[in-house]
Amino acid sequence: MSGQVNSKKATERVRIAIFGGSGYGGAELLRILLFHSQAEVVLATANEHAGKRVGEVHRNLHGITELRFTSALATEELEKLDDVDCIFLALPHGQAMEIVPRLPTRVKVIDLSGDFRLHSVASYEQHYGRAHTAPEWSKEFVYGLTEINREHVREANRISNPGCFATATLLGLAPLVVNNLIAGRIVVDAKTGSSGSGAKAAANTHHPQRAQSFYAYKPFAHQHVPEIEQTLTRAGDWSSELIFMTHSLPVVRGIFASIYVEMKNAMKLEDVRKMFAEFYRESFFVRFVEGSPDVNWVKTTNFCDIGFAARGQQLVVFSALDNLVKGAAGQAVQNMNLMYGFEETTGLMFAGTNP
Amino acid sequence: MSGQVNSKKATERVRIAIFGGSGYGGAELLRILLFHSQAEVVLATANEHAGKRVGEVHRNLHGITELRFTSALATEELEKLDDVDCIFLALPHGQAMEIVPRLPTRVKVIDLSGDFRLHSVASYEQHYGRAHTAPEWSKEFVYGLTEINREHVREANRISNPGCFATATLLGLAPLVVNNLIAGRIVVDAKTGSSGSGAKAAANTHHPQRAQSFYAYKPFAHQHVPEIEQTLTRAGDWSSELIFMTHSLPVVRGIFASIYVEMKNAMKLEDVRKMFAEFYRESFFVRFVEGSPDVNWVKTTNFCDIGFAARGQQLVVFSALDNLVKGAAGQAVQNMNLMYGFEETTGLMFAGTNP
Amino acid sequence: MSGQVNSKKATERVRIAIFGGSGYGGAELLRILLFHSQAEVVLATANEHAGKRVGEVHRNLHGITELRFTSALATEELEKLDDVDCIFLALPHGQAMEIVPRLPTRVKVIDLSGDFRLHSVASYEQHYGRAHTAPEWSKEFVYGLTEINREHVREANRISNPGCFATATLLGLAPLVVNNLIAGRIVVDAKTGSSGSGAKAAANTHHPQRAQSFYAYKPFAHQHVPEIEQTLTRAGDWSSELIFMTHSLPVVRGIFASIYVEMKNAMKLEDVRKMFAEFYRESFFVRFVEGSPDVNWVKTTNFCDIGFAARGQQLVVFSALDNLVKGAAGQAVQNMNLMYGFEETTGLMFAGTNP
Amino acid sequence: MSGQVNSKKATERVRIAIFGGSGYGGAELLRILLFHSQAEVVLATANEHAGKRVGEVHRNLHGITELRFTSALATEELEKLDDVDCIFLALPHGQAMEIVPRLPTRVKVIDLSGDFRLHSVASYEQHYGRAHTAPEWSKEFVYGLTEINREHVREANRISNPGCFATATLLGLAPLVVNNLIAGRIVVDAKTGSSGSGAKAAANTHHPQRAQSFYAYKPFAHQHVPEIEQTLTRAGDWSSELIFMTHSLPVVRGIFASIYVEMKNAMKLEDVRKMFAEFYRESFFVRFVEGSPDVNWVKTTNFCDIGFAARGQQLVVFSALDNLVKGAAGQAVQNMNLMYGFEETTGLMFAGTNP
Repeated sequence: MSGQVNSKKATERVRIAIFGGSGYGGAELLRILLFHSQAEVVLATANEHAGKRVGEVHRNLHGITELRFTSALATEELEKLDDVDCIFLALPHGQAMEIVPRLPTRVKVIDLSGDFRLHSVASYEQHYGRAHTAPEWSKEFVYGLTEINREHVREANRISNPGCFATATLLGLAPLVVNNLIAGRIVVDAKTGSSGSGAKAAANTHHPQRAQSFYAYKPFAHQHVPEIEQTLTRAGDWSSELIFMTHSLPVVRGIFASIYVEMKNAMKLEDVRKMFAEFYRESFFVRFVEGSPDVNWVKTTNFCDIGFAARGQQLVVFSALDNLVKGAAGQAVQNMNLMYGFEETTGLMFAGTNP
Repeated sequence: MSGQVNSKKATERVRIAIFGGSGYGGAELLRILLFHSQAEVVLATANEHAGKRVGEVHRNLHGITELRFTSALATEELEKLDDVDCIFLALPHGQAMEIVPRLPTRVKVIDLSGDFRLHSVASYEQHYGRAHTAPEWSKEFVYGLTEINREHVREANRISNPGCFATATLLGLAPLVVNNLIAGRIVVDAKTGSSGSGAKAAANTHHPQRAQSFYAYKPFAHQHVPEIEQTLTRAGDWSSELIFMTHSLPVVRGIFASIYVEMKNAMKLEDVRKMFAEFYRESFFVRFVEGSPDVNWVKTTNFCDIGFAARGQQLVVFSALDNLVKGAAGQAVQNMNLMYGFEETTGLMFAGTNP
Repeated sequence: MSGQVNSKKATERVRIAIFGGSGYGGAELLRILLFHSQAEVVLATANEHAGKRVGEVHRNLHGITELRFTSALATEELEKLDDVDCIFLALPHGQAMEIVPRLPTRVKVIDLSGDFRLHSVASYEQHYGRAHTAPEWSKEFVYGLTEINREHVREANRISNPGCFATATLLGLAPLVVNNLIAGRIVVDAKTGSSGSGAKAAANTHHPQRAQSFYAYKPFAHQHVPEIEQTLTRAGDWSSELIFMTHSLPVVRGIFASIYVEMKNAMKLEDVRKMFAEFYRESFFVRFVEGSPDVNWVKTTNFCDIGFAARGQQLVVFSALDNLVKGAAGQAVQNMNLMYGFEETTGLMFAGTNP
Repeated sequence: MSGQVNSKKATERVRIAIFGGSGYGGAELLRILLFHSQAEVVLATANEHAGKRVGEVHRNLHGITELRFTSALATEELEKLDDVDCIFLALPHGQAMEIVPRLPTRVKVIDLSGDFRLHSVASYEQHYGRAHTAPEWSKEFVYGLTEINREHVREANRISNPGCFATATLLGLAPLVVNNLIAGRIVVDAKTGSSGSGAKAAANTHHPQRAQSFYAYKPFAHQHVPEIEQTLTRAGDWSSELIFMTHSLPVVRGIFASIYVEMKNAMKLEDVRKMFAEFYRESFFVRFVEGSPDVNWVKTTNFCDIGFAARGQQLVVFSALDNLVKGAAGQAVQNMNLMYGFEETTGLMFAGTNP
C-alpha cells in the first residue's frame, strides 16, 4: 500500500520514545516525527489510552500509523531502556523530574515541560507551586531556544524546551538585549490560543464561553516569566523591569506578543529590521514581515513571524508563532535535529495553509 | 440609582422560584425574568454556588441584581413553600420527578427537563436511561409547545417544556401533519450549537476541538425523538417513518432543522407559505423568511424562523431558533405568560442583534 | 397583535431620525430605539435599501417593525425637517460635516462619526485624511463620553459620540489622570472585534482569514488617538507619552484595552479600586470585576467592565465593552436620555447573555 | 541554507504551471506542489498580483519559495508553451473553456473548474449560467474522482477535477449505487465551510455575519448536482430522485455530507462497512471511522472520512473532507500522480492536526 510513512529502514533512524503521547504536545510530536525521514517512533506512552492505536486518540493520524500507545514505564523499565535513542517528555509539569534521574545517560532527552528550565530552585517552586525533587539535574539541561542557543543545543544531551510564551517573547527581545539597546521598563502584552490550555476540557476552554471571549489571566504571575528573565539576563546587559501580561484568545492555535520597548536612541524601522535580520541570518524559521505578523499565517508551522512599528524611541516588536509547534513540539524536533547533526529543518519543512 | 430592575412593587407580581439557576437554562430564565414586568424572582437555587450573588456566576448579570443563590430546598421546605407562586425547574433530567410530587398543588410548575414530556414510561426509561419514579404525574403536565398547544397551556397548572430539537422540528412539521399532507418517510437533519451541551465543560465542547468541527451524534437515538413522535401522532394522521439525525455545530447558540418531506401532492411554495402563515396567524414568535432562515438572526431571541424550498412533491422546511430561548427558557416564560393571562410576549420582546 | 413595540402614543415621545440606518451603528440604534419607551423612530435613511422594510435589511428586526428605509434627504429637506426632534448620524466619516450646517438649530443631533470630535482641524485632517468643511461647528458639539462629561451632555444640543477604542481607553484612564497619579509613558494595547470594521465585506473581515487570526494594525496611527489625548489633556495634568496600538480579534463584538501605566507612587489594588468606584459612583454602566473583564460578558450591552492588576508602581487597567453599544449606539442613546432629562438607563436596561 | 524546498534537480521533475494561483485552489496547489518530490512549479499566474512573490500573496508560503506570479498568458503564449508539462487550471468557471482549445496537446491539463465536468452542454449552461464555448472538448476530459475512476485517470491527458460537494457525495454513494442497493429517493444534506466561497470577500463570508451563522442556500439548484447525477447514472442502475441541499457552516474548511438512503433490504452496519471497505480497498485516502466523521479530523488533508448509521432499511452515510484538498487541489495532485505513474500518495502524505 502506498500510504506507509517512513519507508526507510528503521535501523538507520533515531529511535524515538514519546512519554505523554495523548496531550497536544504529544499529538504534534507524533504528527511531525511519524513523517521525519531520520526518526522512527518506537514507543509512545499514554496511560489512559494504553493499548489503543495512536489514530484512535489522535484521529488526524487514523490510517497513518499502526503504532499503539503503551502505559507509562515503571522505574525499572526506565533504567533498562536500550532500544530507544531519544526521549521526548511531553508530560504535565512535575513528572519529568521524577523520570530524568532514572534514565540511562546514553539516552538523549528533550523535555517539553518547565521542570528543568529554571536554574533557581526557589523560582521554580514559586512559579510551579511544587517542590523540585531533582534540582541537581537542571545544570545538565540546555535551554532549547534554538535560534539563541544553537551551538549549545548541538552538543547537548539533555534539552529543556522553552515555553510557548517565552519563545515568542525571547525571539522578539533577544536582538535588542544582546545589542544593549533598551532603556526602561518593557511591556509584553501576550495572547494565546485555547490549545495552550491542553487537551483536557476545562471551564476556561468550554466552547460556549471561549468562542466569543477575550480576557487577561495570571497577571504578573505567568510561569514563563522567570525563564524569560533568566535568558535575557544571560543574553546581555539586562536591567529592565518586565511587565508581562497573558491574555486568552478565541483561536485554537497561536501566540501573539506585542512587545513595547523604549530604545536608548531612536532607530529607523529599516535599521531595526536590518539588525534583526543579521541576528537571525542563519535562522530559517524566523521570518520577517511588513507591518504585523498574524497567527493565521504561522498556524501548524514551525515559523516565528516578526514585524515592527516605531515612533521616535518607542519600538514595538510583534511576534507570532504556533504555540504547539515553534512553541513546543516543532522546536523540540528542531533541537533534536541539531543534537543528531541533521539539517535543522528536517521534518519541519511544512508550510501553513491559506486559509 | 437608575439601574434597578423591576421597580414595580413586588406584591403585584408573580413570585418566581428557579430551581437549578446555574446552568444555561437557569441563566436565561434569570436574564428574562429579572426584567419581566409581571414577575419577581424571589428564589434561585444552585447548590455549588449557594451564597454567591447571581452576578458572580452569570457575569452578564453583574450589577443587575442583588439576588443570591441558595441551596436546593429540602423535602420539608418544598412542602411548605408559601411565598412562591410559580417554579421553573431547570435541573438535569431525573430531578424534577423527585421534586414535583412534593410541591404544594397551589404552586404552578414549569419543568424544562424531559421528565414529564413523555406519556409512555417505557419510552422515557429507554431514552433517558433511568427509571421514572413519578410516572403518575405525567398526566398532570401539559406539553408546552406554545404555538401548538396554546389553549391547554392557558389552563395548565403544570407545564412540561419541550426540548430544543423538538421545538424546531415540531414547529416545522405541525402544519403539514395537521393538514395531512405528507406521504412516506421524513428526514430531519438537525444541528445544534454547543450551548445545548450545557454549562459544564466536556470533551465534545472543548474549544480546541469544537471550534472547527462538525459531526453527527446519537444517530437515530436522540431523546427528543419520542416527544416529536408523540406530538405528531396526536396532531394528525401521522404514520410516517421519522429519520431524525442530530449534528453538532461550532456556534454557541442555535438549532437549525432541515426537514425533508414528500408531499402527497405537489404544492406551490406560495401555497405552502400561506398554509403555514394561516396556521401560525396568532403566533408572534414564528416568523417566515424568504429562502432559508439563519441561526444568526434568532440568536438570543424567542423567535423561530421558518423558510421553505420545494421541487415537485419534495418539500424542505427549514426552521431555526435559539436552543436556550425558544428552545428552553424563552418558551418557558411564554408559557408562564399564558398561564397567568399576561400578554404572551411579555418580557420576551427583545430582538436579536445585527451582527 | 401582542407584538407591537412602543405602544405608548407617538406624540408623547421624542421623534427620532436615524441617518445611515443600514450599517452596524444604525442596526444597533434601531434595535435599541425601537424598544425605547420615550422615543419613536419616525425616519431611517439608507440609500441602497430605500423602500425596503427595516426587517429585510436587519433580519433580527424582522417582525418587530413596519418601518421602511428612505433615501438620504436632500439639502432642502434637511432645512425644513419639522417632524423630527433628534437626529442620530450613523454615517461614514466625512458626511456629518456636510449635513450638520444645514439642520435646523431646533433639532438635537448626536453624531456617531469622528467629524466633530476633534477641536483641532489640523489633527482631524491628518487622522481622517480629508479636509474639514465645517470646522466652525466643532465648538457646538459636546464630546459625549457620558461618564466623564455628564453635566455638559445634559445641556447639549449637539453631541459628538466617542469612538469605541476611545471610550474603552478613556474610561480606564480618566480616574488616574484626573487624580494626577501617572508617571511616564502609557502603553495601551487595544483589541477590537470584526464588527468594528463595519457592515461591508472586506479583505480583513473575510471569514476564512479572520476566523483564526490575530494581528496588529494602524500602528501609532489610529484615528481615535487624538480624541483620547484631547480628552485627557482637559481632564487633568496630562503630560505622558501615549503608545496606542490596535489589534484585530476574531470575535464579532468587543473592545478590550490593556492599559499599562506607571504610578507616581505604588498603590494597593484595593485603593485603586476604591478610587475608581468613587469616580464612577453615579455610573451604572461602569462595572468593576475581580481580575480581568471579558468581552464575552459585555457583548450586546451598554456596560464597560473594568478590572485591575498591580505590582509595585506598575498598574494595569483592563477595560472591556461592546464596540457597537457602549462604543457607539448605546452610548449615543445614553446621551440622548440625558439631553431629554430621561433616566440615563432608559432603553438600555438589557443584560448580556450567558453564554 | 537548509530551507530550500525541492532540492532535487529540476530537470528530473514534472514542470508545472498553475493558472490562477491567487485563489484558494491555487494556494493549496502551491502548498502541495512546492513540496512535491516529483514536481516543480515553473509558472504561476495571477493577474492582479503579477510580479509579486508567491509568499507575499499567500503569506503562509513566505520564506518557502522565491517564485513570483506572472500575468495570465496571451493566446499566442499558450500555443507555444514548451517548458511546461502539466497545467493546473484553478480559474473561475468559464475561463478554462477559453484556454483549453489553445493549449498544445502535448501538455497535460487538470482543470479544477466546472467547465468540462458535464457531458451535457444544456446542463452546463443551465447550472453555470453561461454559454459553453468549447463543448466538443468535454469528451477529451476524464472526470477525476480518483477512487472511482482510477484506471481512466491513469491514461488521461485531460482531467476535469470534481467539485467538493460532488466528491463528498459520490464517495459516500458510489458503493451503494454500484451494488444496486438503494430504493427510493435520496436525501443529501450537505454543509460547507466558508473557504468554499473563494478568496474574495463577499457578504456571505463577512466575518461578523458568518461567524455565528448556519443557513441553507441554492436549494435544489447547486451546480454540483448534475455531475453527481451523471456519475451515478454511469456507475450503476441509478433511478432514484436526488434531494440535494447545501448549507453554510461557520468553519473555514470542510464539507460534511449526511446522506440518507433507503436500502432495498436492511443491512447490518457491519456488512455495510465491509462492503465499503472492499470497494475502497486500494484507496488510501478513504478512511472509515466509528460513528460519525468530523471535519476537524480531515482539515488540511486529502482524506475523505466515512461513517455510518443504520436502522432497518434506513442507512445514513456520513462523509467529511476538506473542500480545498480532497475537494480540489489535493485530488488534483492525486490525479497528476496517477497520470505520471507516481505513487498515488506522493506529495499528499501529510496528516491533519490535533487540534
